[in-house]
Amino acid sequence: MAKSVREAFRVPADVDLEELDPRERPVGPNDKSAAAEDMTDLATRLDGLQEALFAEAIGGGKRAVLLVLQGMDTSGKGGVIRHAAGLVNPQGLQIASFKRPTEEERAHDFLWRIRKEVPVAGRIGVFDRSHYEDVLIARVDSLVPKKVWQARYGKINEFEAELVESGVTLIKCMLHISPQEQSERLLARLDDPAKRWKYNPGDLDTRSKWGAYQEAYEAALQECSTDVAPWYVVPSDRKWYRNWVVAALLAETLTAMDPQFPVATIDVDAERARVAASDVT
Amino acid sequence: MAKSVREAFRVPADVDLEELDPRERPVGPNDKSAAAEDMTDLATRLDGLQEALFAEAIGGGKRAVLLVLQGMDTSGKGGVIRHAAGLVNPQGLQIASFKRPTEEERAHDFLWRIRKEVPVAGRIGVFDRSHYEDVLIARVDSLVPKKVWQARYGKINEFEAELVESGVTLIKCMLHISPQEQSERLLARLDDPAKRWKYNPGDLDTRSKWGAYQEAYEAALQECSTDVAPWYVVPSDRKWYRNWVVAALLAETLTAMDPQFPVATIDVDAERARVAASDVT
Repeated sequence: MAKSVREAFRVPADVDLEELDPRERPVGPNDKSAAAEDMTDLATRLDGLQEALFAEAIGGGKRAVLLVLQGMDTSGKGGVIRHAAGLVNPQGLQIASFKRPTEEERAHDFLWRIRKEVPVAGRIGVFDRSHYEDVLIARVDSLVPKKVWQARYGKINEFEAELVESGVTLIKCMLHISPQEQSERLLARLDDPAKRWKYNPGDLDTRSKWGAYQEAYEAALQECSTDVAPWYVVPSDRKWYRNWVVAALLAETLTAMDPQFPVATIDVDAERARVAASDVT
Repeated sequence: MAKSVREAFRVPADVDLEELDPRERPVGPNDKSAAAEDMTDLATRLDGLQEALFAEAIGGGKRAVLLVLQGMDTSGKGGVIRHAAGLVNPQGLQIASFKRPTEEERAHDFLWRIRKEVPVAGRIGVFDRSHYEDVLIARVDSLVPKKVWQARYGKINEFEAELVESGVTLIKCMLHISPQEQSERLLARLDDPAKRWKYNPGDLDTRSKWGAYQEAYEAALQECSTDVAPWYVVPSDRKWYRNWVVAALLAETLTAMDPQFPVATIDVDAERARVAASDVT
């Protein structure tokens, strides 16, 4: 039997990012057109699963999903939201983008702004960047003392265990690209006037710290890939494969959750009769 | 030349809802499969237009779109969000559902909760119900004295003119269904266990006031369809046609807005050279 998508991309405990090929395709479609076909099926599956999750919550269920997206600039966090999360009913989504924290946010614990965006029951939350920035840029740029960011791994694990306990299933994806691919994507943004607005000269400063970022990612993956909230590393040098993997992770996770439409508490036959008797002109 | 979708469905000043056929198809596709094909094209157009609107705002633009959805129960507000608004990148959407107001909301002016959900620049806002409930259910059920709801038409017009002034283009859609179609849809919800959770016995109370609601809708359409913020009546007895009309209204409106990608303020050649010189391993 083919490996599940979750098995194929779940990060190993001793992950070494340099050994993971951003172009590898251990499962799934072999080319772009096969992926496109598969995405149509995934869209149908996800549509039904999302609706059941939503309905389950209307019936009093407490479960939700949280897709956490992290990755270097141009790795495709926006593309995944557009093409994978975009497959489901937008009313079922709860998207949060975490930019550089505001002064108010910095005055609070690092998880304060994150907690406010935890998806409500029945929703599929999507984090475009997340609390992991607080052990990524915060570590690489020494925004806080080492002692502070070091303590955060444990706090993140506690926070995520708490989320799981409350009914949230996490899908944490690191979009893994090569520095060569990033260079090509940055040039593509400069070449196309319709993409130029996405180009940020500051991205090159981050790029110049590539090694330090890979180290910080590795530490986050090693410290915070737990049994209740594992990390997945998504090969992202091919956009179509990256989008397929995340959509498949969503579908597989939701299928395993097996959300249930609530059992009606109404007297269906009596209501049928009421509707039939309610003719208006 | 074919009538534009906006022309075809713009509400006449002296609208009489009884004279508008919820099954009429004055423009657009002739059957479901033609509509499906057209929706694929609309999806591509909307994707590009939404991205340009979003980019325009990154460049300092102040424009946004606000799709207001109103209609009797089962008319398809949720379906339109799923199938028409769902065609665009979910990151570009800002969806707000207005339920029965909370105690806090009722303690404020009726527009208080509405103002908080006005889409930010670059977004396509969607209101699932809206400030119009305050001249619909509020009028039909006498939730406030006549003097109060009567004054609201003018306040709504002022509010919407203010929105337009600030850069928001409104697309106000009344999803027009027949009472026969509503009856069928209510029965369909009862018949299908996967739809039963959508059935609310209270909907029959609203249904029993059909005539009063049509009057209240007519008044809202007559009083609040202005040159700057017109109302459209969308024939909604056929779901596929209803979804097509709203998607086409969105596409036509955005095309007329002609959103512009911002002109780069960076030195493109210098940045190309910086990227080329930035090789990392």
